Amino acid sequence: MRIAIDGMGGDNAPVAVIDGAIQALKEYNNIELYITGPKEIINSELDKYTYPKDKVTVIDAKEVILPSEHPVMALRRKKDSSIVKSLNLVKDGTCDGIISAGSTGAFLAGCTLIIGRINGIERPALAPIMPGRHGNFMIVDVGANVDCKPAFLVQFAKMGKIYYQKIFNVKNPSIGLINIGEEEEKGNELTKATYQLLKEENSLNFKGNIEPRDIPTGDTNILVSDGFVGNTALKMYEGSASSILGIMKDEVLRSSIISKLGVVLLKPVLKNIMRKFDYKEVGGAPFLGVDGICIKAHGSSDAKAFKNAIKQTKIFYENDVLKHIKNEFSIEN
Amino acid sequence: MRIAIDGMGGDNAPVAVIDGAIQALKEYNNIELYITGPKEIINSELDKYTYPKDKVTVIDAKEVILPSEHPVMALRRKKDSSIVKSLNLVKDGTCDGIISAGSTGAFLAGCTLIIGRINGIERPALAPIMPGRHGNFMIVDVGANVDCKPAFLVQFAKMGKIYYQKIFNVKNPSIGLINIGEEEEKGNELTKATYQLLKEENSLNFKGNIEPRDIPTGDTNILVSDGFVGNTALKMYEGSASSILGIMKDEVLRSSIISKLGVVLLKPVLKNIMRKFDYKEVGGAPFLGVDGICIKAHGSSDAKAFKNAIKQTKIFYENDVLKHIKNEFSIEN
Repeated sequence: MRIAIDGMGGDNAPVAVIDGAIQALKEYNNIELYITGPKEIINSELDKYTYPKDKVTVIDAKEVILPSEHPVMALRRKKDSSIVKSLNLVKDGTCDGIISAGSTGAFLAGCTLIIGRINGIERPALAPIMPGRHGNFMIVDVGANVDCKPAFLVQFAKMGKIYYQKIFNVKNPSIGLINIGEEEEKGNELTKATYQLLKEENSLNFKGNIEPRDIPTGDTNILVSDGFVGNTALKMYEGSASSILGIMKDEVLRSSIISKLGVVLLKPVLKNIMRKFDYKEVGGAPFLGVDGICIKAHGSSDAKAFKNAIKQTKIFYENDVLKHIKNEFSIEN
Repeated sequence: MRIAIDGMGGDNAPVAVIDGAIQALKEYNNIELYITGPKEIINSELDKYTYPKDKVTVIDAKEVILPSEHPVMALRRKKDSSIVKSLNLVKDGTCDGIISAGSTGAFLAGCTLIIGRINGIERPALAPIMPGRHGNFMIVDVGANVDCKPAFLVQFAKMGKIYYQKIFNVKNPSIGLINIGEEEEKGNELTKATYQLLKEENSLNFKGNIEPRDIPTGDTNILVSDGFVGNTALKMYEGSASSILGIMKDEVLRSSIISKLGVVLLKPVLKNIMRKFDYKEVGGAPFLGVDGICIKAHGSSDAKAFKNAIKQTKIFYENDVLKHIKNEFSIEN
């Protein structure tokens, strides 16, 4: 497959992006990369490595869109930016997918405006995979749509199901509606109406309302919500993990020498735990519902995270997720 | 002060409630308790203890409202329930405050319907205090109001400020708006409009938007949001802490004997950490904006948690929080 890479997107671009891209080229078969960015800068990074030159094409792009810029305005003004150029590579069929670690706003707006929605999809949704205690879970949406209608959430559930099925090879993944109570009649106007719609979708393995307290167990595969609530859940999970591990560090630092020895003995266990919470292992978040394979990598991606985002893009492609989503919605419409 | 105690509310009632009440009587001065519930049951629990009999009055109530019941319907039908009877004790001036560990829905509806709102308050809000890495933080609201208008959130901020000031003796606590981006223009319709209103309130130490990732640090004292988002943040925090500690346990169990020895050496540190996350230390959540001191204790409160809820009620009373809230809103209207 041919993958467009936004060479200048992310806190550690272009160094980590190029590093991860080269690692991916060496590790995975059947990928070709189209890297966008200022030609001299990208080439001088590439020159640090030995790699199969026929697998990499550099596409010159002189501008960069920053996270602080207004997404839609920036997309319109900066036609020669690395993100716009890489989106165009998917749009014109040169590439099968795109990865960016840059501005989330510009990426989502660009995917929708330049690549476009799949026929029948009302709103595309950002759907990261997170590590839970008993398994991975996915939240759809985490910020692409802050104000939602019930029908949007039903589509989130259907797209999420196809993605989870194909990626994790789970036949009928469980689906929950994020809500502040388990009972059917609990929640706000949006969740109450969405519950009724999801209940009627017999093709979905709908488990009902899931309270946020139960999300991190990973016992429910796919959680749907509007992007505001989904983002709150996701960021609160990240923040809690980091604060709890921080509190532990604080406590250990001011503890006795015996306790510090305890930490030394526990090192392998702590390493396993940290690995469980490492977003770099997961790759990126697919933007489901647009007419291309669009993967948003974490803004602070290092080379390993970026390499894994490329792997994820490849799995998305090889499992024909896009075609399956299109089929699902073309039957409907 | 005289405190009405819902003797039958909570998973561990009446045993833990009575146990906690007796502990509080022995530890704190100047409190008198009015305990509601079936007279024989409450009395036979009380008989297990020696305590100053003149400080306890048992008010007979034959019925109990369960969390599974529809709050408003149950309140109307079960006039002889422990919760309705204890609410009436505040309503008629017999008691200065009420504590219940029972059905949250029935408690909030009962406080609003029976005790009533403070003049000028549009919507009362539930406002628990949580332990953060660098200090305690408070979320207003966590579920009393799932669909909110911007003006409600401004009132949440003002009430939260008074409570936090008086309880923690902080002169001008910082206030943040829970949002999915830091920039002023980020968020949904509610947060965008609320931001503009809060910005204009010069009496508030408004820090702007706070992303959920930054809530658990405790660097912002008071976080305002609609009850759905606030509940999501709160429950996700609880769930993350429990899942992360669970993952640690899982990893330790399958680890080497050396790592297990490490845990033994770390015991005192782990105990400190657990104490930091112990809701039992905190007490309960005040329901701010109703015309009485109304404290919702955790549904799974044990005796210690209940005792601390009584302590919290006493601090609320002794610091005249109710009068200060009334003053704030009477000037406005």
